[in-house]
Amino acid sequence: MSRNIKLIIEYDGTGYAGWQRLRGRPSIQGEIERAILAVTKERVTVIGAGRTDAGVHALGQVANFSTTHRIAVDRIPGALNHHLPPAIRILEAAEVPVTFHARYDARRRVYRYAVLNRPAPSAILRHHAVHVPRPLDEQAMAQALARLIGTHPFTAFRATGSAERTTLCTMHQAQVARSGPMVLFTFEADRFLRHMVRLIVGTVLRVGEGKLPPDALAAILAAEDNSRAGPRAPAHGLFLVRVTY
Amino acid sequence: MSRNIKLIIEYDGTGYAGWQRLRGRPSIQGEIERAILAVTKERVTVIGAGRTDAGVHALGQVANFSTTHRIAVDRIPGALNHHLPPAIRILEAAEVPVTFHARYDARRRVYRYAVLNRPAPSAILRHHAVHVPRPLDEQAMAQALARLIGTHPFTAFRATGSAERTTLCTMHQAQVARSGPMVLFTFEADRFLRHMVRLIVGTVLRVGEGKLPPDALAAILAAEDNSRAGPRAPAHGLFLVRVTY
Repeated sequence: MSRNIKLIIEYDGTGYAGWQRLRGRPSIQGEIERAILAVTKERVTVIGAGRTDAGVHALGQVANFSTTHRIAVDRIPGALNHHLPPAIRILEAAEVPVTFHARYDARRRVYRYAVLNRPAPSAILRHHAVHVPRPLDEQAMAQALARLIGTHPFTAFRATGSAERTTLCTMHQAQVARSGPMVLFTFEADRFLRHMVRLIVGTVLRVGEGKLPPDALAAILAAEDNSRAGPRAPAHGLFLVRVTY
Repeated sequence: MSRNIKLIIEYDGTGYAGWQRLRGRPSIQGEIERAILAVTKERVTVIGAGRTDAGVHALGQVANFSTTHRIAVDRIPGALNHHLPPAIRILEAAEVPVTFHARYDARRRVYRYAVLNRPAPSAILRHHAVHVPRPLDEQAMAQALARLIGTHPFTAFRATGSAERTTLCTMHQAQVARSGPMVLFTFEADRFLRHMVRLIVGTVLRVGEGKLPPDALAAILAAEDNSRAGPRAPAHGLFLVRVTY
């Protein structure tokens, strides 16, 4: 009988082409499918909640796959980690109803974006935070982000050439917090369009640097004009933190 | 005229043989000397405050070197960083009296040791924190560490085969703090013997796991017997945080 297994996954996206399996390029999905093959001898497709881009990290990506293998569910993280590179770690595994789909059933996703805001760049954080040397005004950024809360078409903040059916998203949380030299942005929404967080962060950083007024995000959002958003902030500051169902 | 330049340096020790230049192996000192040569055309010796071991990191290593080059001191970090690998960043440079010696003049050094204390290992922190899956008892560890404060011969907590003139160190701070799954140890002393922090951490983790009583550190310290200390905790959890003069 086939079982549906839900995984919670942390990964360091550095050096990967992103979540999605791509012929001939290392992907998180591809590595996990290879580890499942090694453990179960089954070729499966792993469905991820969020298809993170190249260089984007995850603290709590959620995925699921079907297997007929009878391995005890609490042994799955250790067994898969044994076959995975250290940059990818299975944190938890659980058996879920066969109808569970990691992407379609996700109700909310939380992303974090990390900025190091000090004059000198960091060696330790070079792959996990974006360096912004000039002082950022958090109050202005917080004010700008607050205007994103609610349900809006986020047309202005999506990759050019995207073809989602609808650009409507409900933003539940759009915050910024400073802790010493670290400036952390947190976003929670029912869904995110391609490049949406990075375009919002790229735009709000211009507010933080005083190059745009705090109401710029609301104006760009209302204009639904993606030529006024951005630039897109680099991938390596972005983390998929958690997905809720 | 020769100027004495003080540097503050952050580095990711992963993949380096340590601070000290070693023939044919990548070292932090060697990389910085090479960058100085590229900028000044002078072959110098860079003196580091702490000779960190292979895999050990620094947030605020201090070093100094002499140069006759007339580059403005505020341009030194950028110029050296241009020639350094991203795993090594010069945070600050300052001109100091010619008598200043980064190692001999250091009055206190602060080291931090990072432990990830949760069942699952971490992908993101794999090079910057040591994974301890079983719950650690911070209270017992704090009690054990408190007994290290003061001036003692730290003979029990030094590398076998070391030949320092004296093992007397004055420990000003020996603390543990938890923040979510992270357990951070902080040590401040006038000097540290070779492997001292890693041997103390390896021993206190046994206290945290309930394998040794909280008074074990005091007993081992008093016995001056390094066969009872340890095991030595891995290098990649250790950070040289700051050096004061």
